[in-house]
Amino acid sequence: MAALRSEIRVGAYHDSLSLLELQLALSNLPGVLDAGVAMGTDANKDILAQSHLLTPEARTAAPDDLVIVVRAEDDAAAQAALCQVDELLARSRRDMEQDYRPKSLESAAKMMPDAQWVLVSVPGRYAAEVARQALRLGKHVFLYSDNVTLSDEVSLKQTAAAKGLLVMGPDCGTAIVNGVGLGFANRVRRGPIGLVAAAGTGLQQVSTCIHQLGSGITHAIGTGGRDLSDAVGAVTARQGLDLLSRDPDTRVIVLLSKPPSPSVARELLRMAQDADKPVVVDFIGYGPPARRVGNLHFVSTLDEAARLAVELSAEAGGGGSERQTEPEPAGFAPGQCYLRGLFSGGTLAYEALLLLQGYVPAVYSNAPLSEEYRLADSLISQGHTIVDLGEDEFTVGRLHPMMDNDLRIRRLRQEAADPEVAAILLDVVLGFGAHPDPAGQLAPAIAEARARAQEAGRRMEVVAIVVGTDEDPQDLGTQVLRLEQAGARVETSTDAAVQYIGPLLQAINPNLATSRPVSVDLSVLHRPVAVINVGLESFAESLAAQDVPVIQVEWRPPAGGNERLMAILEKMKGK
Amino acid sequence: MAALRSEIRVGAYHDSLSLLELQLALSNLPGVLDAGVAMGTDANKDILAQSHLLTPEARTAAPDDLVIVVRAEDDAAAQAALCQVDELLARSRRDMEQDYRPKSLESAAKMMPDAQWVLVSVPGRYAAEVARQALRLGKHVFLYSDNVTLSDEVSLKQTAAAKGLLVMGPDCGTAIVNGVGLGFANRVRRGPIGLVAAAGTGLQQVSTCIHQLGSGITHAIGTGGRDLSDAVGAVTARQGLDLLSRDPDTRVIVLLSKPPSPSVARELLRMAQDADKPVVVDFIGYGPPARRVGNLHFVSTLDEAARLAVELSAEAGGGGSERQTEPEPAGFAPGQCYLRGLFSGGTLAYEALLLLQGYVPAVYSNAPLSEEYRLADSLISQGHTIVDLGEDEFTVGRLHPMMDNDLRIRRLRQEAADPEVAAILLDVVLGFGAHPDPAGQLAPAIAEARARAQEAGRRMEVVAIVVGTDEDPQDLGTQVLRLEQAGARVETSTDAAVQYIGPLLQAINPNLATSRPVSVDLSVLHRPVAVINVGLESFAESLAAQDVPVIQVEWRPPAGGNERLMAILEKMKGK
Repeated sequence: MAALRSEIRVGAYHDSLSLLELQLALSNLPGVLDAGVAMGTDANKDILAQSHLLTPEARTAAPDDLVIVVRAEDDAAAQAALCQVDELLARSRRDMEQDYRPKSLESAAKMMPDAQWVLVSVPGRYAAEVARQALRLGKHVFLYSDNVTLSDEVSLKQTAAAKGLLVMGPDCGTAIVNGVGLGFANRVRRGPIGLVAAAGTGLQQVSTCIHQLGSGITHAIGTGGRDLSDAVGAVTARQGLDLLSRDPDTRVIVLLSKPPSPSVARELLRMAQDADKPVVVDFIGYGPPARRVGNLHFVSTLDEAARLAVELSAEAGGGGSERQTEPEPAGFAPGQCYLRGLFSGGTLAYEALLLLQGYVPAVYSNAPLSEEYRLADSLISQGHTIVDLGEDEFTVGRLHPMMDNDLRIRRLRQEAADPEVAAILLDVVLGFGAHPDPAGQLAPAIAEARARAQEAGRRMEVVAIVVGTDEDPQDLGTQVLRLEQAGARVETSTDAAVQYIGPLLQAINPNLATSRPVSVDLSVLHRPVAVINVGLESFAESLAAQDVPVIQVEWRPPAGGNERLMAILEKMKGK
Repeated sequence: MAALRSEIRVGAYHDSLSLLELQLALSNLPGVLDAGVAMGTDANKDILAQSHLLTPEARTAAPDDLVIVVRAEDDAAAQAALCQVDELLARSRRDMEQDYRPKSLESAAKMMPDAQWVLVSVPGRYAAEVARQALRLGKHVFLYSDNVTLSDEVSLKQTAAAKGLLVMGPDCGTAIVNGVGLGFANRVRRGPIGLVAAAGTGLQQVSTCIHQLGSGITHAIGTGGRDLSDAVGAVTARQGLDLLSRDPDTRVIVLLSKPPSPSVARELLRMAQDADKPVVVDFIGYGPPARRVGNLHFVSTLDEAARLAVELSAEAGGGGSERQTEPEPAGFAPGQCYLRGLFSGGTLAYEALLLLQGYVPAVYSNAPLSEEYRLADSLISQGHTIVDLGEDEFTVGRLHPMMDNDLRIRRLRQEAADPEVAAILLDVVLGFGAHPDPAGQLAPAIAEARARAQEAGRRMEVVAIVVGTDEDPQDLGTQVLRLEQAGARVETSTDAAVQYIGPLLQAINPNLATSRPVSVDLSVLHRPVAVINVGLESFAESLAAQDVPVIQVEWRPPAGGNERLMAILEKMKGK
């Protein structure tokens, strides 16, 4: 009959590697069938219960208490095992080649002044404070710990950004800086591809795949999984993107994340467009606006991200060639900056909204991509606007705009008279059922609008997306010719039209440049890495194995992990 | 001084084409500067106001009232114009070559018994009733009208589906059936590509682009924009997909929609996987699970959809070759059907969830794609399950599963003992910081799990995704070898693993076959098209221009559009 015995150590702290080693050592003792060692959280109790290791005593343990349970062949064996706990714990102490272990970050920093990184893997509730100390000392932080609050993440990253420091994490599993793997990281060949990832194993998957394809990476910057949320605003991802954009060794950038906040994604993508090198984007599970927008290349899987990055980096020149031919922004008057799209086709309007995301921050519409960009009044444009004139609101007791150009022509005049409008985008859908001669009606209105703008000293760019075939009743060739003669640029798909108009809008809206945090000095990527490690010793061992100078801090939770005492200490510090 | 004059005709009905023509005719009268003709809805009043055509009288008009406004050089000219309204309205009556116009659908159907289609473009609030009549007569419906309620759409489509009839729409702008354009449609070369589209101008854009690329289409089935919502459940899209799957002339299918409901999308995609021909999917703005899943090819723009479809249709064989090599489902015991994924990497778990969407209906997780699939208890799997063991809940006071295999091994045993489990998927992440020999711990557990299953007469498929390089400290080659020797199949990416396991799950879960509506007879695609048109006469003219037999119904709103009288009539009919 098997015997179950447990021991609770109130408020005892040991790092989780030591606990695992204790559990394994206990399991291997003679007569022991199974063992469980964990802090007394509810989750851990559930896990113990599932392995039939939850004793009534363990059930009463607090989250700060260490629970040790042994199931053995008989009670004597169980007792004997528990008696060895202290000895086994002492043995689990790693023997790193480090004579003296500083007790604080400050002393560690004095011992190794060249260490520009602090690697933090203490339990989540202590981690933010350790990271804060590291930032005060002017160190970059690799914050492996999870269970850190969102508000701590926000304040840490804002503090860091203001100082030109990086905080990778919290819950950052991996990074590779100047050839050195921090946290979990594969040994990957050095090469021309840089990574920024809010997805830890995503970074590992892509970097190993790049290695297997014969290429390699410059640096791989982890951000932690929440970096691309609205609250955090991609502080670290933007810093990383900025660093890799400026890094001459990085010829192609890969940007990885689980689905980001749409507004954060938009801003990050606009910043990526300034990178002057190809950026492969995998926002896993997030609808890409297109396969390619300028230098941005969207992919759907990690596999594909690696393949495409290798392919692009192999192409002659790598960067540089990516810059699109700059559109000619001459002729616009000061203040002319907005696009107004007047669509008869709902899907085309929708696709235009999607594609424009790659170029301008916000596009308003009566059928917007998200409610925040809904026009207050469909009849009045604001900022960049795409109106779908085929929406139900416009078609009660009225013909569809594919048949009736009247409303569109009136709106065209109105938009062209607006001194803030620089460009007008419209679709002209031919075919059976549609107006027999849309260009015949639209072309004079376009010519008139352009002439009036010119009289007022403004340039009015008009782009028409013509959907039709040479067999359509309207005669495609004549329709195109009339529109062109009126001064419109004619394209045959929304994609092509936005590829023309998007860069033009960017050129005349120089204030679109995204707000960047204080630039992180490029030396962070190029100086030899040295690290102060606080938490899991195995990370220090991994660094030592990579011949990286590392110093292990002998960290203990404040007040021995006693919550009440900690609160008092905090108060005394006047925080 | 310009004069503004208006006239209100209470409860007068004219189709919107006649109203547009009246407006144009009034504008062209001598001395007239501008004219507005519209039903007195609030939206239309706003539009009149914007053109400075809203008189105090017009402001009081009801939505059923016809508003006619003229701005002229002087009052006499305005008066003279209004006097001509009746004459102009009479003149706007189209002179189609049709001697007798039936007043009802029933008589039209008797006049042209071969007409299998009814094209409905009467105002939205009357449209559902006309469509209902058409279905009663056994006709397919092309429902151009918008402003039809969602509940009417649902009931119409359910009625139709039960009878093997199609309802394209409401708000269906376009379709091409057997070479005939219904509604708005371009004249497109016939060819090997079939379209199903919940996106009207999307259908037009893709079909014209296919034409311009030198290819052509078999049929293009419109569904209306709401078809892929949860409420409607893609009734028409599923019918369309089913028709085109069976149509021998269609070698490639293109499926278009603005972002569909995720659950509807999943079901539609599973159905598309059975098509036995390539299906190009553009769910505009919807994150594709991958670039390719079996015969499904995901694209991001309409342009790309057309290009890829043409490319695929040009490939030798077209269909058939698309079928993946069938996985070998032998050896599983009855009841073995589920996948259990035990991940240490959050991103890999997430990507696995995304990719599995293409193969199985629901995958539960502690970090699910949508909340409805959240595990009630992370420790207990249900159905297909992917557990991310690196989630915060598992890592309080416990090492990350990349370092600690204990929890994963316990869970592996638990899953393998479950008689419903057929396959186990796990990731093995190598590199610095990770466990020094994960395969050394996992392989024996895998071998044991497989052996136990075999003893119990079950097959246990184990797939391991190994992330690592040949330079990693663990020695990739040895790790892979140990896993393979234990009987695991080793892949190096989630994508590759799911490409293997997905079809296997489908093979052992034959009940995944989606519920199909009553099949629509293929003859609808191949019989010469004949149409009864109710509403806009221009649609009848377009059909006549295509040499299609068409009959125009002389439709008037019930009770002359008088709402109160209509309600009484409805009551008398005992509805």
